[in-house]
Amino acid sequence: MIVAMNAGAAPEEIQAVIDKISEFGLRAVDLPGGERTAIGIASAIPPELRQTLTELLESMPGVDRVSQVSRAYKLASREFHPVSTVVTVKGVAIGGEEVVVAAGPCAIESREQLFEAAAAVRLHGGKILRGGAFKPRTSPYSFQGLGVDGLKLLKEAGEAFSLATVTEVMDSHDVDLVSAYADILQVGARNMQNYPLLTAIGDSCRPVVLKRGPSATIDEWLLAAEYVLSRGNPNVILCERGVHPLDREHTRYTLDLSAVPVVKHLSHLPVIVDPSHACGNWRYVAAMSKAAIAAGADGLLVEIHPDPGRALCDGAQSLKLDSFESLMQELRLIASAVGRPMPRE
Amino acid sequence: MIVAMNAGAAPEEIQAVIDKISEFGLRAVDLPGGERTAIGIASAIPPELRQTLTELLESMPGVDRVSQVSRAYKLASREFHPVSTVVTVKGVAIGGEEVVVAAGPCAIESREQLFEAAAAVRLHGGKILRGGAFKPRTSPYSFQGLGVDGLKLLKEAGEAFSLATVTEVMDSHDVDLVSAYADILQVGARNMQNYPLLTAIGDSCRPVVLKRGPSATIDEWLLAAEYVLSRGNPNVILCERGVHPLDREHTRYTLDLSAVPVVKHLSHLPVIVDPSHACGNWRYVAAMSKAAIAAGADGLLVEIHPDPGRALCDGAQSLKLDSFESLMQELRLIASAVGRPMPRE
Amino acid sequence: MIVAMNAGAAPEEIQAVIDKISEFGLRAVDLPGGERTAIGIASAIPPELRQTLTELLESMPGVDRVSQVSRAYKLASREFHPVSTVVTVKGVAIGGEEVVVAAGPCAIESREQLFEAAAAVRLHGGKILRGGAFKPRTSPYSFQGLGVDGLKLLKEAGEAFSLATVTEVMDSHDVDLVSAYADILQVGARNMQNYPLLTAIGDSCRPVVLKRGPSATIDEWLLAAEYVLSRGNPNVILCERGVHPLDREHTRYTLDLSAVPVVKHLSHLPVIVDPSHACGNWRYVAAMSKAAIAAGADGLLVEIHPDPGRALCDGAQSLKLDSFESLMQELRLIASAVGRPMPRE
Amino acid sequence: MIVAMNAGAAPEEIQAVIDKISEFGLRAVDLPGGERTAIGIASAIPPELRQTLTELLESMPGVDRVSQVSRAYKLASREFHPVSTVVTVKGVAIGGEEVVVAAGPCAIESREQLFEAAAAVRLHGGKILRGGAFKPRTSPYSFQGLGVDGLKLLKEAGEAFSLATVTEVMDSHDVDLVSAYADILQVGARNMQNYPLLTAIGDSCRPVVLKRGPSATIDEWLLAAEYVLSRGNPNVILCERGVHPLDREHTRYTLDLSAVPVVKHLSHLPVIVDPSHACGNWRYVAAMSKAAIAAGADGLLVEIHPDPGRALCDGAQSLKLDSFESLMQELRLIASAVGRPMPRE
Repeated sequence: MIVAMNAGAAPEEIQAVIDKISEFGLRAVDLPGGERTAIGIASAIPPELRQTLTELLESMPGVDRVSQVSRAYKLASREFHPVSTVVTVKGVAIGGEEVVVAAGPCAIESREQLFEAAAAVRLHGGKILRGGAFKPRTSPYSFQGLGVDGLKLLKEAGEAFSLATVTEVMDSHDVDLVSAYADILQVGARNMQNYPLLTAIGDSCRPVVLKRGPSATIDEWLLAAEYVLSRGNPNVILCERGVHPLDREHTRYTLDLSAVPVVKHLSHLPVIVDPSHACGNWRYVAAMSKAAIAAGADGLLVEIHPDPGRALCDGAQSLKLDSFESLMQELRLIASAVGRPMPRE
Repeated sequence: MIVAMNAGAAPEEIQAVIDKISEFGLRAVDLPGGERTAIGIASAIPPELRQTLTELLESMPGVDRVSQVSRAYKLASREFHPVSTVVTVKGVAIGGEEVVVAAGPCAIESREQLFEAAAAVRLHGGKILRGGAFKPRTSPYSFQGLGVDGLKLLKEAGEAFSLATVTEVMDSHDVDLVSAYADILQVGARNMQNYPLLTAIGDSCRPVVLKRGPSATIDEWLLAAEYVLSRGNPNVILCERGVHPLDREHTRYTLDLSAVPVVKHLSHLPVIVDPSHACGNWRYVAAMSKAAIAAGADGLLVEIHPDPGRALCDGAQSLKLDSFESLMQELRLIASAVGRPMPRE
Repeated sequence: MIVAMNAGAAPEEIQAVIDKISEFGLRAVDLPGGERTAIGIASAIPPELRQTLTELLESMPGVDRVSQVSRAYKLASREFHPVSTVVTVKGVAIGGEEVVVAAGPCAIESREQLFEAAAAVRLHGGKILRGGAFKPRTSPYSFQGLGVDGLKLLKEAGEAFSLATVTEVMDSHDVDLVSAYADILQVGARNMQNYPLLTAIGDSCRPVVLKRGPSATIDEWLLAAEYVLSRGNPNVILCERGVHPLDREHTRYTLDLSAVPVVKHLSHLPVIVDPSHACGNWRYVAAMSKAAIAAGADGLLVEIHPDPGRALCDGAQSLKLDSFESLMQELRLIASAVGRPMPRE
Repeated sequence: MIVAMNAGAAPEEIQAVIDKISEFGLRAVDLPGGERTAIGIASAIPPELRQTLTELLESMPGVDRVSQVSRAYKLASREFHPVSTVVTVKGVAIGGEEVVVAAGPCAIESREQLFEAAAAVRLHGGKILRGGAFKPRTSPYSFQGLGVDGLKLLKEAGEAFSLATVTEVMDSHDVDLVSAYADILQVGARNMQNYPLLTAIGDSCRPVVLKRGPSATIDEWLLAAEYVLSRGNPNVILCERGVHPLDREHTRYTLDLSAVPVVKHLSHLPVIVDPSHACGNWRYVAAMSKAAIAAGADGLLVEIHPDPGRALCDGAQSLKLDSFESLMQELRLIASAVGRPMPRE
């Protein structure tokens, strides 16, 4: 931690900062510069002290600002865990060599719809079936999902087609319920900083897809992962799904694909990409899926629907089943170009 | 709802859109323009159909985009509720003539700290005591609040100084617990789209301060209010607390004060402002508090601390008690300049 | 400047950074922390070296990132120039005690329109007449301004009503031309980083209103001011006019009023606010004007029009002349509440 | 154009809007909905009238907002120009089948540096040499480029290695000068809305790389292209280079790769990507280069330097020559996976 003093800071103000740091048993080092003095802390700062100390120092007279040398997350960091984490669910390894595709409808609407989608996922080489049972909708008047009935259908379809399953959990008290039916839990973008939910999932030790919030910085996202990891659950899969856009005229969000190599550099956790929610328009989904794999993503989470024109949720961004088939063929070529297998079976 | 077709849309594509609209029992009107055809829906669209229909139409061939004529919220809208809502709690009217100040520490740390702050709130004319017992912290290693012990202290302090109280609730299952101790619930910015929480608060009929999420548009914020209102709870107080900033070099968020007159125009709900979280720096809190009242806000939510240099949370943005005293005097002048009373008692 | 090394940085990598710093004649100080080593530079860094050195160090193996202790601007900084700058033009002092209002039409359309607006500015206590002759328009098909004919009308109107005048200059080669007619030059938001233009204005020594670019951070804005100041022109007036918004549904930009106290803290330069372009809607202009003065702005730049329904540019955001009259009365009350005179004459 | 009236709009207000539309010789169609009336314009609106009319209507009583059916750009639009434009410079076709790579140093520093880079570009299959002679720098104290001496070196190097050349022009009055030395002009992100510059380039008919401004929406970018096209210059190459990021902790900007398929859908113009400025860190450049080609970009603009540790500008984001060699090999695989040739010669 480095404390930059104002140019005109008085010697007593500088000394007070040094004394405050020493009070906590840390070693302060004075760095007189041309115009300003900076004070460095040359000791390990215990994680629970970090934020409090930053704020204390920032509130002291003569202090201009405090900047960090270490990152606030530890368990999520590659610095202390250089080997990449592979999350394995029902024989599907996410974060390993293979590129893994999860696909399915935004919302589970009926057995027929879900099974038709699941058959296509299986046929074209997807490994995981996605489908929402509890839907977070911006408007209280929109379709909110089938709830437990949806979960049951998802479990059935997963078993029928030998696919692992993933679905969203929105409330900390539903973690056990959803875990009874689905293989992988999903935390939606709006819940990325729902700490009771993250804590409950941490305690459950279930694999979890943690979506990035639309205005979350990468450090905030990794700190959300840290909430899960710090409860003893190592099975975190990060999912980039778009950040707040300049406008919503053409896409719903701006897919931040540079987050893929950045997270790969900073963290050992697997990272996948959801191009469907980011684009909000089926027309751009194939291009962004290919780009995601080229950028180094470990997999995709794609929305498909047997009949998007009748979807109850996110029809505009869902691929038809034949478009999904073409996409899977194209993705195999890209995966191969970046040296990763993507087996048909 | 208006459907803009592509310039090259085929007559069959245009007809298919008209037919789809008719399928839902709505009347479609053709608007041939210079280059494109637009199709308007000249009927009332049931609210539960709105989002689905938008997405269905957007997924049809030849459609460029769909734009809305009506707003998605109804109960929050001033169009259907022209009279301003006043939320009254223990004799304190929020959204009426008077400007109301809520103040207190970010986190409740001890009886001594809270009571000292509460005494200052009372003495200088604040009406509501704020204090966090459950704290949503970006890092799992930061102080997470005193929990129920904090709630008990808050209730005691509120009674001792005849102040209404407000505190954050983070989990839908804590609504009853928090309601047992505090007069007003608070939904934090990160939970603005936590729908189980909003629904539970809607069912409780408790007054609620609903903070705007840092990347929430005003329409998304009003739709979050709609979740509460649609469960029969009319006691919603909106709170602007800053949106995602260009950088975080000087302030934590960008306080969007234009949201105040915009919300006043669109909605009948009271709107208050939290300058402390937005600024993240005590130095700018007074200026932004005055600006908020000048912009038409119904009140403020301000962080104060008897000793910011020892605060466990957000020390850098908390006002000292004597700065709070000066601020209250300055605010009275501004309130008076915009024609609103702000009584000392 | 502080160089944070990676946790796993090799001793040779740390040494190489220290050596590189020494190569430039600067003193490097080693700060071993718990997990990482940081290296501080404990000497004055010449301004022309700063950016290059930062980039060199960032490109070295083992380096995580480089953070700054000093600010990149010097002449704009209050640290080295504690007394507030007052820019005086034709007897109007901007940045002094008085709150100063500049008003007028977005674009000069005709003598009649400009003179009618100028008469209202004068009558209601405005000191400066604004009006665009060269208009930067997003579309090449929109009205581009009257050019030199507009400048002539502006000069005439300023003289007729004893008002100082301000108008935009878009091209470095027009600085002399515009200076021949107007008292104050204006750099529009889109040109904030047009360095040839800033340099030409710096050389001219003319007073200049420097608008903040919609995605410019405060440091970038002050560096743009530094371009003008470093050519020997001290007459820079900063103008906040809104930053990129979350959406454009209700306002065109998000007026960042916290920029006012932040800039007042960081810099000695006067700062005014343009609420009209930020709001893009006359309905919100009065509220944001009052808020700007309450936040500590030295003045306003407001668009008014005798007949907004016939304006060739920005009609939707222009105040009618009678609304301007009411606004000026309200502003006087706010100015007085923050202890600043705003004389009628 | 669609005018949405307020829910409580009076019949006279509705009629006034209809009358105003008719005044301009356009046909207004009344669309009574459930709660609001909308008024559509069922005629072609002349381009020069569009913005003015929008603003006039928005300023009328009872009007809630005005939304557009047609896009504001025509010449840039694929609707009226379905065939993709190919810009050909010295035998290099940009926007055709082949993927084209432009590479070179950020700033031209010396003959040796430039020639070494140019040799690598040629050797590894790049077609265009980039290099800055006039550098727009955020700080006035940073290296500003070699100016005309740099232009001369660029021309010489282009000829020596049979490469087309591209370099930035910052001032409308330098268009002829820069055109005398370089094959392709470049408009930097900060100048995207410098209309005198765009107009001068439009008149010159020189090929131009038009970078997207960091807060420019796609429609604003295409309108900037329209400025050039409307002067009769069809040789516009769009370049995505990153939009304003959530923070600058890990990348300088957020590379918006979805802009590639969106622009390909909306426009016939070629689109290339600059991953170097967006990332600001060499470590992420290769991943984003591959992603750009996978997303459908027609080419890349990449910064390389023989010795990034001694670069005077943007060393941190420049690839070493051997990294560039590897990247070119990887790109060839990606190009082939998306069915595009990228010949070595």
